[in-house]
Amino acid sequence: MSGFNRVTEADLAFFRALMPGRVFAGEAISTDYDHDEMTEYGHFMPEAVLQALTAEEISRVLAYCNERRIPVTPRGAGTGLCGGCAALFGGVVLSTEKMKKVLEVDTRNMTATVEPGVLLMEFPKYLEGTGLFYPPDPGEKTATMGGNAMTNAGGMRAVRYGVTRDYILGMQVALADGSLIELGGKTVKTSSGYSLIDLMIGSEGTLGFLTRLTVKLVPEPKANLSLLIPFDDMDACIGAVPRVLACGCDPTAVEFMEREVIACAEEYLGKQFPDSSADAYLLVRLDGPSPEALQPAVDALTDLALDAGAKDVLLADTDERKESIWNARGAFLEAIKSSTSAMDECDVVVPRDAIPDYLRRVVAISRETGVRILSFGHAGDGNLHVYACRGETDEATWKRAVADVMERLYAAARALDGQISGEHGVGHAKRGFLRESLGEEQLRLMRGVKAAFDPNGILNPGKVV
Amino acid sequence: MSGFNRVTEADLAFFRALMPGRVFAGEAISTDYDHDEMTEYGHFMPEAVLQALTAEEISRVLAYCNERRIPVTPRGAGTGLCGGCAALFGGVVLSTEKMKKVLEVDTRNMTATVEPGVLLMEFPKYLEGTGLFYPPDPGEKTATMGGNAMTNAGGMRAVRYGVTRDYILGMQVALADGSLIELGGKTVKTSSGYSLIDLMIGSEGTLGFLTRLTVKLVPEPKANLSLLIPFDDMDACIGAVPRVLACGCDPTAVEFMEREVIACAEEYLGKQFPDSSADAYLLVRLDGPSPEALQPAVDALTDLALDAGAKDVLLADTDERKESIWNARGAFLEAIKSSTSAMDECDVVVPRDAIPDYLRRVVAISRETGVRILSFGHAGDGNLHVYACRGETDEATWKRAVADVMERLYAAARALDGQISGEHGVGHAKRGFLRESLGEEQLRLMRGVKAAFDPNGILNPGKVV
Repeated sequence: MSGFNRVTEADLAFFRALMPGRVFAGEAISTDYDHDEMTEYGHFMPEAVLQALTAEEISRVLAYCNERRIPVTPRGAGTGLCGGCAALFGGVVLSTEKMKKVLEVDTRNMTATVEPGVLLMEFPKYLEGTGLFYPPDPGEKTATMGGNAMTNAGGMRAVRYGVTRDYILGMQVALADGSLIELGGKTVKTSSGYSLIDLMIGSEGTLGFLTRLTVKLVPEPKANLSLLIPFDDMDACIGAVPRVLACGCDPTAVEFMEREVIACAEEYLGKQFPDSSADAYLLVRLDGPSPEALQPAVDALTDLALDAGAKDVLLADTDERKESIWNARGAFLEAIKSSTSAMDECDVVVPRDAIPDYLRRVVAISRETGVRILSFGHAGDGNLHVYACRGETDEATWKRAVADVMERLYAAARALDGQISGEHGVGHAKRGFLRESLGEEQLRLMRGVKAAFDPNGILNPGKVV
Repeated sequence: MSGFNRVTEADLAFFRALMPGRVFAGEAISTDYDHDEMTEYGHFMPEAVLQALTAEEISRVLAYCNERRIPVTPRGAGTGLCGGCAALFGGVVLSTEKMKKVLEVDTRNMTATVEPGVLLMEFPKYLEGTGLFYPPDPGEKTATMGGNAMTNAGGMRAVRYGVTRDYILGMQVALADGSLIELGGKTVKTSSGYSLIDLMIGSEGTLGFLTRLTVKLVPEPKANLSLLIPFDDMDACIGAVPRVLACGCDPTAVEFMEREVIACAEEYLGKQFPDSSADAYLLVRLDGPSPEALQPAVDALTDLALDAGAKDVLLADTDERKESIWNARGAFLEAIKSSTSAMDECDVVVPRDAIPDYLRRVVAISRETGVRILSFGHAGDGNLHVYACRGETDEATWKRAVADVMERLYAAARALDGQISGEHGVGHAKRGFLRESLGEEQLRLMRGVKAAFDPNGILNPGKVV
């Protein structure tokens, strides 16, 4: 990772000629660009920030930087949680924040083609009236679609619909040397050589720079409802999940939540959660063509939940009731953040039936280390978000404690055949844990792949591998 | 690809000590091993055939052959259609035909773990009574699950359920140097570094040798029915497809078939197809929790089809009726084969709305070249199987004509933003077309990936890249 050049005045002159008014250097760079959502992982000020408008500009910046050995760090909305867009080695941050055009909505092929900077929250309005929707549903709606693609973001609807990877049909990518390639397209299946597009998805900008994205759309279900199911304890709650998944009701989302996290959300939002009777809740969402069509699934789930020890089954079929539950769920991360002076998070994924074991280990780790740990997550796909929260400790003690907690949390996931990230990625913050998790052989293969794509190592250096 | 060593007596002695009774050389090798389903692509006799029983044996064979620079060609059931298991450079064919154990069916995590040689047709019996099923449904049921994984096989249920790639959670793979790695596992989502498992899927054994497979299972739908929809012509038939897909009825399969192909199947099976009124048919299959639950979708599809110009809508809801239709559909490939003295096929995939255009070009190509061309395929995902059939021509004329036809068929797919293979793969027969389709940049990346995984090039040489 050594041997990079600093950005010179001549470099800036080249960038300014190429992208007039969209090149920032020195004092003119907003401190927003020195971190993502996790300031805990450090501040790294780039030497220049370039706001691209076109694939052609990105291609030319990369060709230039590759020649000059200047590191290029890609950035969408900067909402990552692993420091993936931090400019560890200075150089250039190349931002897609101004590439926000939805280029096409193709209703016949049920696809949309977008620039990488389109925000997840802005995309649905382009689909209005088409009867189609884009299922990936990460909690952070101010993220870019390009960022979602490059981290393989997941989200709450993944149980039924899958993750971002499952919705990416085509990509235009600028390689390190500036050449633009088209991966996939509007075709919905292929067995035509190595799946470079799957390699690019989740590569966090270390193999290429995403310049255009074609996603798959599906018919929008006309009805949905949610079931909020309180349990006396988390064991019973999570214990019901395999039966929920196997019963054939095809749930869109299966989330678990504990009282302490809900309390954070109540305080953060200033609103009461619709139920306060229990320590643990399962939240199940169903989609379907009509409320009547969902009734058999509601009946089956109700019987099953009560049989599994649920205290009650609360049906949320009005917009108001649904919002009060899902808004609370959506606010968990921000609510936990606001409840503590500092935190660190992990995003492990374990086999679904290992969730109760994992949660028991989390409780034990909290007890052993004295660190407050909160968790919530996607019970339906074994993906847990676990937050270590700083209490009344000094900085040095906290740093030591949180490092210890993270080490233990990842070790517990490994012991249960889990992986280090379900949907947040690796960035630079989780690289050490990735190494421990995958072993030397796989890292060697990944480094070989990296070298084939980016021989000079200019693309997002210091990330993933 | 040069620089390989021949298999010596010493090599055979090593193999025989490792795998007693399962090593064949010279005259003892059945000619079955010199080709796959497509004898048109040549006969390539290996120097030795090894029938592995364990991952450990595979690992040791690879380590040995890598050291000795002996090419290793993987083979499952030999049902491929692109010469993927042909031993182009001699050396060793390493067969998984004896690795047929289903190691685990995990109903709580809804996964199964199998050896690579388990046949697709044998797998369902291991799931009986679990309420779970494995959706991938390639036409060739005597294929192995490992072969399906390494070609990313598709099949008829892909419209609703996706292709083999979508059901592979974990793999154990032997690398070229013999080291065994575990990719993925029982976790259902991950963003933990480059997706090596997606790279391995569809790599046709050129990056590693699959030794164990963990697949995702889903709850088995309790009811299904099919609609056979006759149209006056193929344009109207295919023209209805986008509406079928967008109407929200979530079809499992959407197939198109033409009268001439159905006639082949009738002759081949000695059975009448349930309808003979039309030149073109759409076949739609629906899965659901009960027949009643499917009724709204049947009504919607019926209205839609009649509005789109269908002559009728025939409901197949009895086992007998369903079988008579789907058995015919399942026999198309064999029926076409038996109707001609020689043939070649292509498996292009185009954006779904480009199917009518593509089929018009196929008709034009047939007219221009005088070669009889039959086609059928997966209207729901834009994947067409197109067969050039030899008529009363001499060998040399046929060879020239079929080469010309294939060139034109692939060029037509490229012109419509299609790809060369939807589900059959590349093997050695389609390599030239892959090159034309992808361009130099992507091939360079694929070759870089290959070099990272298999620096000595011993794994299935001459295939894919």
